Amino acid sequence: MQELNQRVILKSRPEGWVTPDNFDLDTTPVAEPEDGQLLVRNVYLSVDPYMRGRMNDVKSYVPPFELGKPLQGGVVGQVVASRNDAFAEGEWVSGMLGWENFSLSDGEGLQKVQAGPAPLSYHLGILGMPGMTAYVGLIGVGELQKGENVFVTAASGAVGSVVGQIAKNMDCHVAGSAGSDEKVAFLTAELGFDAALNYKTVEDHVAAVRGACPKGIDVHFENVGGPMFEAAIFNMRERGRIALCGMIADYNAEVWALPPGPRGLFVLIGRSIRMQGFIVFNYPKLCAEWVALGARWLEEGKIKYRETVAEGLESAPAAFIGMLEGKNFGKQIVRLADE
Amino acid sequence: MQELNQRVILKSRPEGWVTPDNFDLDTTPVAEPEDGQLLVRNVYLSVDPYMRGRMNDVKSYVPPFELGKPLQGGVVGQVVASRNDAFAEGEWVSGMLGWENFSLSDGEGLQKVQAGPAPLSYHLGILGMPGMTAYVGLIGVGELQKGENVFVTAASGAVGSVVGQIAKNMDCHVAGSAGSDEKVAFLTAELGFDAALNYKTVEDHVAAVRGACPKGIDVHFENVGGPMFEAAIFNMRERGRIALCGMIADYNAEVWALPPGPRGLFVLIGRSIRMQGFIVFNYPKLCAEWVALGARWLEEGKIKYRETVAEGLESAPAAFIGMLEGKNFGKQIVRLADE
Repeated sequence: MQELNQRVILKSRPEGWVTPDNFDLDTTPVAEPEDGQLLVRNVYLSVDPYMRGRMNDVKSYVPPFELGKPLQGGVVGQVVASRNDAFAEGEWVSGMLGWENFSLSDGEGLQKVQAGPAPLSYHLGILGMPGMTAYVGLIGVGELQKGENVFVTAASGAVGSVVGQIAKNMDCHVAGSAGSDEKVAFLTAELGFDAALNYKTVEDHVAAVRGACPKGIDVHFENVGGPMFEAAIFNMRERGRIALCGMIADYNAEVWALPPGPRGLFVLIGRSIRMQGFIVFNYPKLCAEWVALGARWLEEGKIKYRETVAEGLESAPAAFIGMLEGKNFGKQIVRLADE
Repeated sequence: MQELNQRVILKSRPEGWVTPDNFDLDTTPVAEPEDGQLLVRNVYLSVDPYMRGRMNDVKSYVPPFELGKPLQGGVVGQVVASRNDAFAEGEWVSGMLGWENFSLSDGEGLQKVQAGPAPLSYHLGILGMPGMTAYVGLIGVGELQKGENVFVTAASGAVGSVVGQIAKNMDCHVAGSAGSDEKVAFLTAELGFDAALNYKTVEDHVAAVRGACPKGIDVHFENVGGPMFEAAIFNMRERGRIALCGMIADYNAEVWALPPGPRGLFVLIGRSIRMQGFIVFNYPKLCAEWVALGARWLEEGKIKYRETVAEGLESAPAAFIGMLEGKNFGKQIVRLADE
């Protein structure tokens, strides 16, 4: 076991967009587990949009990251020492741990994960929080029915790409938006979307969504906020449901300089539309359902999954910033060490 | 029976705010009912915010008003001639009829109303569509529970004043906003609101709502849109519900010049908040429930009701415009004739 623990710590809180200056690398000794604790060697680390919110000093459903301490996120790692009866050395686990090579844990919130047949890193993506979020939003919040019309923003992302494929497996008409022509081609050619559009190059967002979803939208899955969100609202069908999952566009704004919200919310009245914010962890039963279903679909080839892997802990800040800027393709993870 | 039928017709569609020029008065002969029809002498006429939407040439849940034809709205009147077996001469009815002294009807959508103990005009307000809207929004959409915290915009209006009183009768903490100090005083002194604020004079809307609802808002009833709506959103409690009833602020805007929507919708995500648009007519069972409950509460003195009455058909356009501008106090109606 190496004796030093490299960590990425939060040096300062971002004002607006996150920059590399907000992070620092430091090194501490590797801690020894006390009674009830275990030590995890972190192998894969997840960077996700919601983390941006935790960088602000604002009370939310998760507390803010602390200055001078390692950031935290989804991790898959291996138990290398344990004084906790529930975990044995050599077992693989996933959970919220630090951006560091080794994390101490009391075991709370840690899940054991199977090494195979799916790659271990999938437990940070399609079989982890992003995949669960897609399933919970579509099924639990959106109450999606077979054959309905679905739109999703950030459609090629870790959540959006699963949203679209679940809906396709339910015989839905599926369309989505992404930020490059390459991503748009990926959605239709690889993931089976019926239509996709590049939100950066379309001129009339409302017309573009209408073209992609000619019958209108029954369930809209919102990951971003901004003009595409507004355009989706104008294209909602009567009794439509909007699963409000993310507002990346808002996370980078100071509270006093938030961008305006979507116009035309009166549409929700005349068409009896429901918009529902949700947190995946409030739906544990559906999460477990998804892990089983998603694993089966992966084995059966009914769902595809793509990762972008950054190498080494020191690349985590850049991977995180790139993800916020939409530079990744599929799920962005960071590989810290060999399995 | 007088032989001429005066009518208020839609002369032109408003661009932005409604003006008196959008209306015209004309006179036609009083029609004779054919087989299956009845003739109603219109006595009370209702002007309501949703009518503004029907003045635009836009498909919605109700078709737009036609140019050159009388506007339509809620009416209470008396059957003066009937060739429809379901209605007898002398009976009182309410329903959607024209802005005119006499309306022909085939009886569809007409409801018989009791002359007493409540005044007939109440069937356009507290016992009619506005009262039903308050009840449906709070109970059916907002799923209000005893003792929760409620906020309502346009709180002294036909819908808002009932919203607040229903909630008070359910032992809730109730606060609301209105557009004058007189209205604000009415809310707390007369209707029993726990707090009220004048949205035109407060400087910090978010702080003002926080002061009025220190524990936050469980159910928000939105009638207006704009800064108060945004402030309510920021003050929502976890698992709160927003009943989206009206967006007056939007109705007067051209589609291409709509005001920005509420900022901070990300709040809905972290706090698992549901926002639901609704149309009262989709909840017929709750509507009937309210007519019985509202009448009982009126008799028992558990609910107060205030009307502003304009005299004469020719005053209808001004009454409608004044209502849109917030000049009325309580429910605005127009009296066309003696009972």
